[in-house]
Amino acid sequence: MKAQVNLIITSSEADSNLYYATKFLAPDPFIFIQIGDEKIMIMSDLEIDRAKVQAKVDAILSYSIYEVEAKKKGVGDPKTIDVLNEVLKERGIKNLIVPADFSIRYALLLQERGYTIEVKSAPFFEERLKKNEKEIEHIAETLHHAENAIDRAIRFIQHTVIKDGHLYSGDRPVTSEDIKRLIAVYLLEHGFIAQHTIVSCGEDTVFPHTEGAGPLRADLPVIIDLFPRSMINRYYADITRTVVKGRASQEVKEMYEAVLSAQGVAISLIRDGINGKEVHEAVLKHFKNLGYESGEIKGRMQGFFHGTGHGVGLDVHEPPRISKRGDILQSGNVVTVEPGLYYSGIGGVRLEDMVVVQENGVKNITRCPKILEV
Amino acid sequence: MKAQVNLIITSSEADSNLYYATKFLAPDPFIFIQIGDEKIMIMSDLEIDRAKVQAKVDAILSYSIYEVEAKKKGVGDPKTIDVLNEVLKERGIKNLIVPADFSIRYALLLQERGYTIEVKSAPFFEERLKKNEKEIEHIAETLHHAENAIDRAIRFIQHTVIKDGHLYSGDRPVTSEDIKRLIAVYLLEHGFIAQHTIVSCGEDTVFPHTEGAGPLRADLPVIIDLFPRSMINRYYADITRTVVKGRASQEVKEMYEAVLSAQGVAISLIRDGINGKEVHEAVLKHFKNLGYESGEIKGRMQGFFHGTGHGVGLDVHEPPRISKRGDILQSGNVVTVEPGLYYSGIGGVRLEDMVVVQENGVKNITRCPKILEV
Repeated sequence: MKAQVNLIITSSEADSNLYYATKFLAPDPFIFIQIGDEKIMIMSDLEIDRAKVQAKVDAILSYSIYEVEAKKKGVGDPKTIDVLNEVLKERGIKNLIVPADFSIRYALLLQERGYTIEVKSAPFFEERLKKNEKEIEHIAETLHHAENAIDRAIRFIQHTVIKDGHLYSGDRPVTSEDIKRLIAVYLLEHGFIAQHTIVSCGEDTVFPHTEGAGPLRADLPVIIDLFPRSMINRYYADITRTVVKGRASQEVKEMYEAVLSAQGVAISLIRDGINGKEVHEAVLKHFKNLGYESGEIKGRMQGFFHGTGHGVGLDVHEPPRISKRGDILQSGNVVTVEPGLYYSGIGGVRLEDMVVVQENGVKNITRCPKILEV
Repeated sequence: MKAQVNLIITSSEADSNLYYATKFLAPDPFIFIQIGDEKIMIMSDLEIDRAKVQAKVDAILSYSIYEVEAKKKGVGDPKTIDVLNEVLKERGIKNLIVPADFSIRYALLLQERGYTIEVKSAPFFEERLKKNEKEIEHIAETLHHAENAIDRAIRFIQHTVIKDGHLYSGDRPVTSEDIKRLIAVYLLEHGFIAQHTIVSCGEDTVFPHTEGAGPLRADLPVIIDLFPRSMINRYYADITRTVVKGRASQEVKEMYEAVLSAQGVAISLIRDGINGKEVHEAVLKHFKNLGYESGEIKGRMQGFFHGTGHGVGLDVHEPPRISKRGDILQSGNVVTVEPGLYYSGIGGVRLEDMVVVQENGVKNITRCPKILEV
């Protein structure tokens, strides 16, 4: 039996599979071939010597040398697939396995040259889903810094003064942007990059992915959701807390209790082998039992209308999902558990922890406390 | 004649074409269809209401409503392409145009359902290449902050003290990481994100994309290359300077002069209609005339072995390239001009400006001075 041949052509900056396979970060696309266990990269003159030092692969071939080869064989102006063709011919490779998001263009050009292309559904590298100890350490390290950042943000909010329903620090109204900057600068100084952090307040919290802007208000929910990435090892963490400076309304207090208990319901079910759909449906049912309706209400989505959780690793959203999609959870998955409730005119509440799936349950690696009124 | 139908399915966070078309930023993939001038997005329950507020499109359809439609028609567990199929059937669409990097998986599933797929080579949206006034303003604004950051970095290096061949600030040796942090924090505080900034020193400068690490040394070249992105409008800038704290070697001084004059050669040639290859070859010839050989020397790439420049916009590397690839430059392109020379045992020198291509030449939008010894 011949060895399977995997092919990826993209930028490792944009594609975590390629980074995972090579541990080499480059902004421009390059060719990666894996023949059984043998990993090969084809690199431009610009990157070849850096790749030789940094990449964790078995062989690094020169794009420009194979470009010359292709020219010798009569290709006038050799492009990526002509260069790849030279390498594949040399090794007698005819059949290729590519990821689901492989470029249609490259696939067609390869088929024209007589190659067969088999598309492998995600996950392309199954082993990415089951994190090893080192990977769990990386994720926990990022999470630890995310928690420190959220702790600083909440303490900052705690120390503001309420004037006319707004939060003030000295003479200045405190904005969403202030809190986001505080979080981003803290993380940057510790080697993490946090983009698209959510610090939303009041009615903005009803849109789960609205990043938030402008002055923060008292007595209304503030959702803080951040998902930094390590600039060293590139592993993400993802955490959310909801706080109110001042007094939360009775509705928000009850929603907070409901979300907290829903998180408990989900966490109590998660273990090796469970279907994520079962966990997600238990959360939906729990909310329904408590009287919280979900779906389109008065022309917009309200209640609980996103997934219960998702895998986190080199991508911030990766399989398995804890959602209606029905992914099976396995030991070694690192997943978020993030139920939320959102009602127009009242506000949104979301709480997000990260847990490691184990044989008989989970290890919750999140330590950040959950306190509504600060 | 029927209107052309463009289709993109990916995440707008990862794909600038999709962001360009919708002005909506989302971390998870969604479906975008453009029928002639009409733009349509198909959004999940999680994102649909935020999309209605933020996206610049003509119609926003509910993924879950069409999911129910597909189920009614007997699809057991409808996926992305089943949902899309319902929308396309409703509008009588049979032929689709997709970008070169469209997922092979989705293309096959569409073909199975009887759709014809035409692949359009990059650029998918030609108009992205020719920047309008607003876009040039955005890029110039990012560049202006990048220049302020580089100015601060260079002034910091200038004010260090040399001890035993290393740069010191007070009692502490100054590292590459210190300078990168200074740059990143300054930019972050002004609304820009700078990742993978290069602050390399000595032999590290010979690898053009090595980010650099550890203590900075006196009398050796330090390459500072940054490419921040606006967190508001998402436009990039890209700039590089090379400095020496102390005394540069005679070789480095001469290389600096050569790179500076090569940049002048390139800029003098750039205008609407010129082939980038012509500009690139003029730079190579200029270096050769000055006695600088390029290519593999003693087992590694040395001399000038990267492109002369590239377009900058919503992507940091976008068409047109000023390289052997032979792209034609047009009025309204915003491109870098970044010749460099790299020799093992001596070091690297790179200078990068940004210019707007115009009918009879360029507008250089870069103001940051070029001084080798600081």
